[in-house]
Amino acid sequence: MEKKEGYLQEEEQVVNPWEVSAKDGGKIDYDKLIDKFGCQRLDQSFVDRVQRLTSRPPHVFLRRGVFFAHRDLNEILDAYERGDKFYLYTGRGPSSEALHLGHLIPFMFTKYLQDAFKVPLVIQLTDDEKCMWKNLSVEESQRLARENAKDIIACGFDISKTFIFSDFDYVGGAFYKNMVKVAKCVTYNKVVGIFGFTGEDHIGKVSFPPVQAVPSFPSSFPHLFSGKDDLRCLIPCAIDQDPYFRMTRDVAPRIGYHKPALIESLFFPALQGETGKMSASDPNSAIYVTDSAKDIKNKVNKHAFTGGQESIEKHRQYGANLEVDIPIKYLNFFLEDDAELEHIKKEYGAGRMLTGEVKKRLIEVLTELVERHRRARAAVTDEMVDAFMAVRPLPNMFD
Amino acid sequence: MEKKEGYLQEEEQVVNPWEVSAKDGGKIDYDKLIDKFGCQRLDQSFVDRVQRLTSRPPHVFLRRGVFFAHRDLNEILDAYERGDKFYLYTGRGPSSEALHLGHLIPFMFTKYLQDAFKVPLVIQLTDDEKCMWKNLSVEESQRLARENAKDIIACGFDISKTFIFSDFDYVGGAFYKNMVKVAKCVTYNKVVGIFGFTGEDHIGKVSFPPVQAVPSFPSSFPHLFSGKDDLRCLIPCAIDQDPYFRMTRDVAPRIGYHKPALIESLFFPALQGETGKMSASDPNSAIYVTDSAKDIKNKVNKHAFTGGQESIEKHRQYGANLEVDIPIKYLNFFLEDDAELEHIKKEYGAGRMLTGEVKKRLIEVLTELVERHRRARAAVTDEMVDAFMAVRPLPNMFD
Repeated sequence: MEKKEGYLQEEEQVVNPWEVSAKDGGKIDYDKLIDKFGCQRLDQSFVDRVQRLTSRPPHVFLRRGVFFAHRDLNEILDAYERGDKFYLYTGRGPSSEALHLGHLIPFMFTKYLQDAFKVPLVIQLTDDEKCMWKNLSVEESQRLARENAKDIIACGFDISKTFIFSDFDYVGGAFYKNMVKVAKCVTYNKVVGIFGFTGEDHIGKVSFPPVQAVPSFPSSFPHLFSGKDDLRCLIPCAIDQDPYFRMTRDVAPRIGYHKPALIESLFFPALQGETGKMSASDPNSAIYVTDSAKDIKNKVNKHAFTGGQESIEKHRQYGANLEVDIPIKYLNFFLEDDAELEHIKKEYGAGRMLTGEVKKRLIEVLTELVERHRRARAAVTDEMVDAFMAVRPLPNMFD
Repeated sequence: MEKKEGYLQEEEQVVNPWEVSAKDGGKIDYDKLIDKFGCQRLDQSFVDRVQRLTSRPPHVFLRRGVFFAHRDLNEILDAYERGDKFYLYTGRGPSSEALHLGHLIPFMFTKYLQDAFKVPLVIQLTDDEKCMWKNLSVEESQRLARENAKDIIACGFDISKTFIFSDFDYVGGAFYKNMVKVAKCVTYNKVVGIFGFTGEDHIGKVSFPPVQAVPSFPSSFPHLFSGKDDLRCLIPCAIDQDPYFRMTRDVAPRIGYHKPALIESLFFPALQGETGKMSASDPNSAIYVTDSAKDIKNKVNKHAFTGGQESIEKHRQYGANLEVDIPIKYLNFFLEDDAELEHIKKEYGAGRMLTGEVKKRLIEVLTELVERHRRARAAVTDEMVDAFMAVRPLPNMFD
């Protein structure tokens, strides 16, 4: 068996599409992850360049390093500067009814990219994957895919530029042909190296990587990109999805396609602290888009790990440890006002602001975000879901 | 790793969907194969029962033991006797332009079953498989699938009862959902045990068995069998395909479906002798449906292995060894007149008939068969191929 390149178990930090856990309960070492995965750090020059090319302020996730790594983003931007558009591809595995805030991050960022670059977007709902991994029925996986589509649509995507599809609905035709082309190029040993499968894993798992790979190729969407085989693809995603696209990029030139470019985010930390991703199995580890204002208040107050000191006296004396403080980390994601965030960090770090005050501001920010999402989701009808998921041309997708 | 149940390499006789070779260049031991695979011998009582149920003489392939093994054929016949119909499923991997006589055997027999039982039929063209195994392009695999469809249609199938599909065209929807359901139930170790894959095989090979499995389930064809989830499936095939359906039968009850029944044939021997299947890489090992009368004459006269003696004197004295004689074996497949066949065997075995005379009769029989096929194929238009391959209901399929 070849070296387990992406599957980092031997170094105790495990990051793959199904498991994210830091070494010895510590923090994820993102520098090490970038080294191991072989992607690039997204530095300030990229942020500046995106701002210049799109003539709008960079998204908070971009200017604060939430999206911190990339592959070939320079090529996407070079092409864009020459007047060549691209398309965006992101997705979700519909394993649960309710999304948490971590799930929203790629969609919020993708919505910004779509608006800023004025480009089309395909969103894959991997109901087949979840049916296989989570042992859900086909019908339940499809139901969850539609429910999740409503949350995704609620992020504000432009229907004239967006195609949402479920694998159970859409796999076939040109998409299936590309799956076969990819599968031909990847040995079993290779997927073991990338994903860490064992012989006792079912063959559905082994079969799945090409399904997530092929939306990277425009020919998988003949109703959208017919005759545009040269169109480049940019994939915004959390970095745990990198193994799929490392495999995809390896295969792409062998079957005559461009390698997809990637822009990759940090993991959104659990309320209990930054040791991994939030867990769907522990409802108190995450804020869900279905949480009430009261739920949010309780969760933040009771479960958010803080860097504040154990007594007010010590806090005034030493200040908060911002490095481990979850309220500060969450505000870093969701408080858009840079000046206010800087002010809070300064005052809290110096001990002049108390944990309770920071938590109170976070509760306001999250409650507003979740309320806004809930209102937007309530406005999403079944007809809108059908419209986003209809296999149709998008004649104005580059306007 | 579990015991390699179907992959018989350790006993030197290798029979799997990609390789058929006897031990030490001898004959395939079909009794051993039945034992190893765990299927049943198809005895005379079945032949009699089929004759009684269909009120017509059993096909020459049935009464002469060409189709010699089965799985659950009794259940199919029990159900049929109660008035419950079934459907037939067979297929072909379109790896070459021209079919040889061995390829025609399951189709000739399936045509008889369709007529005799008055049941619908689905025919799978595994262009995806051949694209992956033979490293053909998608386009070439699809072209070969259509060319092969013409040869299949030329066997005389009833268009009102027959749906021919290529995987590249048809995989998706309900068919793909069943693929996922099957894939969930089969571990990688299991497919290694059944098919003998190695870690250096590409994941397309590992992904494929569910594709060949799911036409066994009526829900894979909603345009044909909607609301008929209880319909049983009978698969006529050569016994090298048994591993696919052993896997399918293992999975079927776990996902709520009937196990498909099977009726399995011997391999059609190569002209050079009964050590395996005919080989597409050696054109002189087989009679092709594209061979001219002259080709057939040359191939039989030059390449057919005979059991005749080396001199006329010895032949008159000892007679021919019918056990190894290819002209006799071929006549056993294709000379329909039982009395004439018995006469030839008796005279030839006793040395009163010479090899040249038997070959001459075989050349006549094969030339007529191939000519008839060629005329039938020439009458198959592209429109007919389109019509057989159209996804459409078959309202009279049980009439």
